[in-house]
Parts: sequence; C-alpha cells; structure tokens
Amino acid sequence: MRKRILELLRENGQKLVSGEDISRKLNITRTAVWKHVQALKNEGYEIESLQKRGYILRRIPDRLFPQEIASCLKTKWLGRDICYKEKVDSTNNFAKKLANEGCRDGLLVVAEEQEAGKGRLSRGWISPYAKGIWFSVVLKPPFLPQEASKCTLLAAVAVAKAVNDIKGVKAAIKWPNDIILNGRKLVGILTEMNAEFGHINYVVIGIGINTCASRDDYPPEVRDLAVSVADAAKESFLRVELLAAVLKNMEELYELSVAHGFSAVFDEWRKYSCILGQKVKVIAPDRTYLGTAVDIDSDGLLLVKTNNGHLEKVVAGDVSIRPATASKGMYQ
Amino acid sequence: MRKRILELLRENGQKLVSGEDISRKLNITRTAVWKHVQALKNEGYEIESLQKRGYILRRIPDRLFPQEIASCLKTKWLGRDICYKEKVDSTNNFAKKLANEGCRDGLLVVAEEQEAGKGRLSRGWISPYAKGIWFSVVLKPPFLPQEASKCTLLAAVAVAKAVNDIKGVKAAIKWPNDIILNGRKLVGILTEMNAEFGHINYVVIGIGINTCASRDDYPPEVRDLAVSVADAAKESFLRVELLAAVLKNMEELYELSVAHGFSAVFDEWRKYSCILGQKVKVIAPDRTYLGTAVDIDSDGLLLVKTNNGHLEKVVAGDVSIRPATASKGMYQ
Repeated sequence: MRKRILELLRENGQKLVSGEDISRKLNITRTAVWKHVQALKNEGYEIESLQKRGYILRRIPDRLFPQEIASCLKTKWLGRDICYKEKVDSTNNFAKKLANEGCRDGLLVVAEEQEAGKGRLSRGWISPYAKGIWFSVVLKPPFLPQEASKCTLLAAVAVAKAVNDIKGVKAAIKWPNDIILNGRKLVGILTEMNAEFGHINYVVIGIGINTCASRDDYPPEVRDLAVSVADAAKESFLRVELLAAVLKNMEELYELSVAHGFSAVFDEWRKYSCILGQKVKVIAPDRTYLGTAVDIDSDGLLLVKTNNGHLEKVVAGDVSIRPATASKGMYQ
Repeated sequence: MRKRILELLRENGQKLVSGEDISRKLNITRTAVWKHVQALKNEGYEIESLQKRGYILRRIPDRLFPQEIASCLKTKWLGRDICYKEKVDSTNNFAKKLANEGCRDGLLVVAEEQEAGKGRLSRGWISPYAKGIWFSVVLKPPFLPQEASKCTLLAAVAVAKAVNDIKGVKAAIKWPNDIILNGRKLVGILTEMNAEFGHINYVVIGIGINTCASRDDYPPEVRDLAVSVADAAKESFLRVELLAAVLKNMEELYELSVAHGFSAVFDEWRKYSCILGQKVKVIAPDRTYLGTAVDIDSDGLLLVKTNNGHLEKVVAGDVSIRPATASKGMYQ
C-alpha cells in the first residue's frame, strides 16, 4: 500500500495530491493514508502535508529501497526480484544462500552496508553505509562452466558504461574486472560460480561501486587507493539511478551474449580497457613475470607478450600495470 | 573414551580384555568401563562380557561410524575429518554447507541414508538406509576452475578400482562418471564446484555406491536399472573397508594429478571405460546425435566420431551406449 501511495505522489510530481483522492483510489480510509504517509516520512521521504489540501513528495531519501530501484528500472527480468538489506555480511554470501534455496534468475541483493564485503582471492572489500552501491545478482546462464569467467567481463563492461554516462567520469577496466578512475580503484567485481559437470547451477556477480565514500571512510593503508564516483562527477546522480543503469546494461549484454556469443562484450571490454598496450606485471599462481598486455582471447583471457617474446595467457592470479602509479588496485 | 575402549578391544582380537586392564589403561573406574561397553552394545557392537574375566569384541555393526572408518583408513589427509550422519537430505548439500563454513581440505561426509540424494542435472538418487555408501568429500584443489571436471573422472577411477578389487565384481566407467555393472548402474558421482575467476574455492565430490540395495528398495520404474556390489561379489566385504579403499585410491590419484597432471588418471579411466569404441547417442543441450566414442581428450572431454564423419567434443549433456541394453543409466 505504501508503495502505491508513493507511486501516486511520484506520478503527480510537484502537484498536490489530496488525501481524499488517495483514499478513494486505493480504497482505504483517510486515517490509513495519514498513517502510511507518516511511515514513509520515517523512512526518510520528505513529504509535505498541506492542511486540507493534500500531499507533495518533495524528496526521496538516498536509500536503495526496492520501490525506488523499481521506479527507475528499465529491465525486463534482471533485478525484478529485489532483496534489500540495511546491513549484511556480504551481498554475495546472501545471494548464494538465496540461490541455494532456489531463487529466480535475475534476483538482486542490495545492501546499504556490508560488514564483511568480499573481494577476489579472499580479500576484503570496504563497504560503508550508504556510501556506495553494494549489490549482487544471481544469474542462471545457459553457458558452460568454462564460460562463466566471461560473465565477469560482461559485468565490468556494464558498470563501466553506466559510470561513464555520468558527466565528468572517465573510468576504465583493468583485467579482468576492476574499474579504475584516475589511477585508483572505483569498482570491484567478484563473480562466484556454482557448477557441476557441464552445467552452471548459478553465477553470483557481486559488484561494489564506491559512489561517495571519502578518504576517512577507509583505513589509512588503502586511503590513497580508493576513489568515488562523486570525486569525478560533474553532475549530481542518484544511487538508484546508477544501479538501474548498470542492470539495464547488464541485461542487454547478457541477452546479446546468450543469443550471439560474447564477441560484442569483448569488443566493448577492449574499448573500456586501460590495460591493453600497457606494460604489466603478472603474478600467476606459480610465477611472476613482466610483459605487455596485447589483447584478450576468445575465452576472455588476457594475452601478455613477455619481455622475452613469448605470448602468455593469463588464466588466474593478478595483473598490475607498470609503473605502479598508472593503476593501483585497492588491495594490492 | 568409547573410541579408545574399542581400540583396546580391537587390538586384542579374540583375546579377552579384563575390565581392570581397561580401567587402568584409560584411568577410569570399572563402572565407567561397563557403562561405555553398554553404550557400544547399543550402537550395535557385539561385545561379549564374561563374568569376572573381561570383554571380547565379537562383531562390529555394519555402520559407517567414524571410528570404524578411521580404523581401516590408510590415507594421509583425505577422510581424516569425518562427519557422520544417520540421515541427511544429501551428503553433497551438507558438505557444501561445511565447506562454506570453512572446513578443512579432505573432509568426509557420510550418511546411512539420504532423504533427497542428488544426481547430475537435478536428478534424484535413491539412497536407502545402510544399503549403500552415500558420501561426499570436500577438496580444495590448486587446479583452475576449468580443470574441475577432471576431478570427476578421477573419482570415477578411484571407485572403479576399489569395487573391482572385490572378487567377482567387473564394473566399468561410462562417460563421464557413472559406474556400470552388468549393464546396470552401480555407482553415481556428482561433482559440484564453487569457484571464482581463476580460483576454485572448493569441489564437493558426492559418490553413491549401491552395496546391497535390492530390487525392492527401488521404485518400479528404476528397479531394472539398479545393481549392487553384493549382486556380483563372490566374497563378503564391509562397507567401511570399501569406503576406505575408495578414499585411498582417490588420495593417491589426486596427489599424482597435483604433482604431474591428469594423464595417469586418464590412462586409468580409458582402462576402466566401457564406452570407448562403442556406438553412442549424445544428448547435448542443443541437439542429439549418434556416433562412436573414440577417446577422451586432454581436458577429459569425450570425443565422438559422428555418423557423418565429424569429430565432436562432448562438453555437457548425456551420453548413452547403443543398443540401450549394453548400458542403462539409472535415470535415463
């Protein structure tokens, strides 16, 4: 009911909506209308009540409430089921739990704060309250398990496109999926897969976008490595709108990939990449070497021409751009 | 304490062990000894008590108790942590839960009965009480995610070797990992993986060996497809001993593969295979075709020469041997 009242207020923009109108349209008493409006105010909605004339929605709170996400979402199925958490250990962990219980394809888990956000290779991810978009989606793709890593590149492209649509933001993708702005880490992505022989049960893609966390939100050792969208943006933006844009891009790229393969994703990835053509240091599980990143192959793996002329395929581990100042991963 | 009393009795074979001896060696009262012996009897141990002379362990119960598994286990680390369940929904599900909570590499989950045993591709697996060995192991391999499917072949070889060591049993592996005896399904294996980009978090290998379930233990529609070890065995065997043999084989093959790659596993797999050289029907996710199974490739994928001369790689789906009587999968 609260959601429907909000919709009515939203539809009417800065026009007054009378309590009587709401009560008639939703078939509830005027006292009920009043109670719901109070509850919305408690959630942070600024709703002006003009005695005997009605209500105006002045401002929505900067929260990732499902009704707010839904109100700007333009996808068909991705993010249509939303699980909102004020606080969670990790949205990926929660999403995996729901996936194990059989949630629908495209479920979105979003939190204002993660108490134990996760990065790749058991690293942590700092996720302060309402200072970023910390979310995970559950996908049940028809791809083979060996193709799951391509979903990681797809997610990176979806996010890069969305943040670069904000005026002033020029972010780029490091391989495989960190997103870098002014040499610092803006976005982290952690893709986890649950699969059996020849079949993916589900993929959980966790994305953390730092929208407005500042230096003080980070411990001293990573302060200089972090950057937020707000640091570069030359226009204001709402977190829910940015989230909706990411999901829209992701759904489009995903449907394209299911129908025609990943080549379009790879082309976009190349466009947003900040690593191709750069000198890199590769820390593979078994050894470390230097070279130049030349391309990604048809599996989405990075190809590095080593300093002694070999072409190496990076299938695991970490890649950093040399000199280090060109790109600093947040936890490297 | 109960475990230590059992050890003492076991060490002494058919020799009497006096209550006084036990009480002195374990530093407990004779009443405590008596109470523990009663508890063991309640668990199904046949322990003869001879007035004033002592105890003899006459027979151990046909249960997969951790102490019984441990007493015949010859592995270094695999199966050294044991989680025993009288009844569980699925040992794979339980093992995944423990893996998510950070269990050690090599954990064994074993159950007398599974109420919702799982097979590949969301099929069920019937697991009646004490009529089979229903178990899962958690591995944390250093392999890449794309190599996880090879663990499935490894498990199939480990089981095939162990059951074929029982006199009278001539079982063979169908691709990828069903084990067939007299054209019927003896063993099912379900490998599940949890991975992120370039890194396996864990693999759970679930194995169901039908040791003595009979036709009546299965619903009518699958009765003719099932077979038990006891159906073919020309000698008696204990479930714990067969389980210990599987784990020993698995640990050896695993260590070999970590050190030198999977080629030895593939060679053994070829030796036990009943599919190579056979006419097969391949039900791939996108189409169905006929051909002859010719080999497995270096990724462990089945190579099938189709009837019109193409060489196809089977990366997912199902393969059945034609004519159907040559090999029937339990749920095909």
